[in-house]
Amino acid sequence: MKHFLLTLCALCATLSLAAQEALQPNSLPTSPEQHADRSVTFRYTAPEAKSVAVVGDFATEKLSMTRNAEGIWEATTQPLDSELYSYSFEVDGVRVIDPSNVHTVRDIATVSNLFIVSGERGDLYSVQDVPHGTLSKVWYPSPTLGVERRMTIYTPPGYEEGKGRYPVLYLLHGMGGDEEAWPALGRTAQILDNLIAAGKAEKMIVVMTNGNAIQQAAPGHSAEGLYKPQFQIPKTMESSFEKSFADVVKFVDKHYRTIAKREKRAIAGLSMGGFHALHISRTMPKTFDYVGLFSAATMKGKDESFYGDMAETLQAQRDNGFELYWIGIGKEDFLWKMNVEFRKQLDAMEFPYTLRISEGGHTWRNWRIYLSEFAPMLFK
Amino acid sequence: MKHFLLTLCALCATLSLAAQEALQPNSLPTSPEQHADRSVTFRYTAPEAKSVAVVGDFATEKLSMTRNAEGIWEATTQPLDSELYSYSFEVDGVRVIDPSNVHTVRDIATVSNLFIVSGERGDLYSVQDVPHGTLSKVWYPSPTLGVERRMTIYTPPGYEEGKGRYPVLYLLHGMGGDEEAWPALGRTAQILDNLIAAGKAEKMIVVMTNGNAIQQAAPGHSAEGLYKPQFQIPKTMESSFEKSFADVVKFVDKHYRTIAKREKRAIAGLSMGGFHALHISRTMPKTFDYVGLFSAATMKGKDESFYGDMAETLQAQRDNGFELYWIGIGKEDFLWKMNVEFRKQLDAMEFPYTLRISEGGHTWRNWRIYLSEFAPMLFK
Repeated sequence: MKHFLLTLCALCATLSLAAQEALQPNSLPTSPEQHADRSVTFRYTAPEAKSVAVVGDFATEKLSMTRNAEGIWEATTQPLDSELYSYSFEVDGVRVIDPSNVHTVRDIATVSNLFIVSGERGDLYSVQDVPHGTLSKVWYPSPTLGVERRMTIYTPPGYEEGKGRYPVLYLLHGMGGDEEAWPALGRTAQILDNLIAAGKAEKMIVVMTNGNAIQQAAPGHSAEGLYKPQFQIPKTMESSFEKSFADVVKFVDKHYRTIAKREKRAIAGLSMGGFHALHISRTMPKTFDYVGLFSAATMKGKDESFYGDMAETLQAQRDNGFELYWIGIGKEDFLWKMNVEFRKQLDAMEFPYTLRISEGGHTWRNWRIYLSEFAPMLFK
Repeated sequence: MKHFLLTLCALCATLSLAAQEALQPNSLPTSPEQHADRSVTFRYTAPEAKSVAVVGDFATEKLSMTRNAEGIWEATTQPLDSELYSYSFEVDGVRVIDPSNVHTVRDIATVSNLFIVSGERGDLYSVQDVPHGTLSKVWYPSPTLGVERRMTIYTPPGYEEGKGRYPVLYLLHGMGGDEEAWPALGRTAQILDNLIAAGKAEKMIVVMTNGNAIQQAAPGHSAEGLYKPQFQIPKTMESSFEKSFADVVKFVDKHYRTIAKREKRAIAGLSMGGFHALHISRTMPKTFDYVGLFSAATMKGKDESFYGDMAETLQAQRDNGFELYWIGIGKEDFLWKMNVEFRKQLDAMEFPYTLRISEGGHTWRNWRIYLSEFAPMLFK
């Protein structure tokens, strides 16, 4: 046994370069490191660099790092709010990720590192010692779009054990996103596991679709290969995805133990996904009793035959009744004005909704907060 | 609609730095780029750097890059075999990943970029236009270890549609790995989807466990938080995991539509996982009719009460009979000698096995090949 480990260590010297790297991660400095006061220290080894800074969503300014005698750059933040943050380094003007931190996440075409500052909100976004749901990547047929498509499905703790039936939240991503966005950046499984364990949310299935009608799956997960994602994708807000949504609901109701009734269905989305939630919920009448618009784009899309009757269908949605129409928007969101106009339209037709105005803007930080507040209101 | 997109673009100038980066990925050069002759060009922007090289498993030497007038470094490989490769850049001696390529994979504590050179083998490892199975992250109870644990489960195309029952392949990772290793580095879902679609493998469930008894889940997926993975983990080859394996089989047979018979169960693993497969299959008699040892560590572990009767239990395994005992090893593998000794032991007791000697050594390249050859031999 000892011999095996010794042989394995000797191997480090002879393996291919790439594998050798993988076996010697301990030469890297510790980064990031959270301190008791919730400040965080970053470190990066770059003896030849002239300037290194941390760029992250914990601050609006870059944080300059200082070089020590060994060529390790270091910087420490102010005490931070408990949150999930992403960051990268800027080395002589070039963006790189932190090699000491394997926890990364892709936001559209950019890979960043993650860290969580513990405390109330950070803990809600972390894996805790509670029962865990199952997260699955599932392919479903969309006869409307004529292709197989991929989605992420969360089933709650105990789903596999029993025979019970569950309500469903359909949760939609924004422009440039895909079926990986909510589980990765939105921490859906962690938030639901923790809310359910705390008795704050009902056990529910969460279905996270791909809202880009021309994509079968997220970049790297379709036959398109390992291509570079784009922020602007054709055919995203012109009714194709909305019209295909009945395929999703049909598949989920057929293959999962759902309660296939309007009072046990919710739909919510962020930005473009809020746009989709708005237009899907008004055009699939009596299907969703809960609607959530998170920083939503609230205008009409390009297809007059689909978006032209927005006013009439919203009135019909009002008349059909529902449990909750929830609108969350940040004070600094670039869609603030558009949301004001939309609410005027709703007010004029006495369409009831719940308004949540938050700090900040068009960010995952807000969308995680909105999900954390929206999920507990569902299916009570 | 047009107004919305214009507003969104204007937003790029005012968003937080991190988000801004995410919206402007198009300023990066194209990298990697595959040419018709299967050579590949890499590019990296670093005007201030003194030297940049590509380090990847497509070559044993670093590939030096050349700087152009705009500060973009570039290098082109020789024509490459069709394969899945990983790489990173070395910038003035510091390892960084390619910001132009969002397709990354973690090998223990190192994140690298991926690319696939198309052709026979690369195509087998790629997502193709074929029916796809479902890949799930599932938590199961291990009464033996006293904790809930996480695993990855592949169910084949059509599993959700029907009521059929399926055979099961248990597929185990190596030292420093976890339940993310086979699906990410081993391309299990792609290989199975493609082999099944080609009629080369039976439809089967593949269960990819976490073989580190002290871990509940891969780094970042347990309550331990976003910590740095280690190559050497305590309590990995001293019987704890092997003794808990009956918990896995019990859970899978209870919660999935399996054919719970020895002739429809296989177990295989790489390196430490081959060690686990060896010792689990001999100590759970009449449970697995197919065993695969991929670059396996074939010695006894630390617990004499568990490993002491290795010879006797192997003889009993031989007497009980089985369909296949498959041993794959590369000519340059550092475990070659240990495998020779193990085969002598098997030969001496007239224990039948199938030997596959490949080129190369202790690499994921070989383990993907072994899975691609082993899976078609199962459950016929």
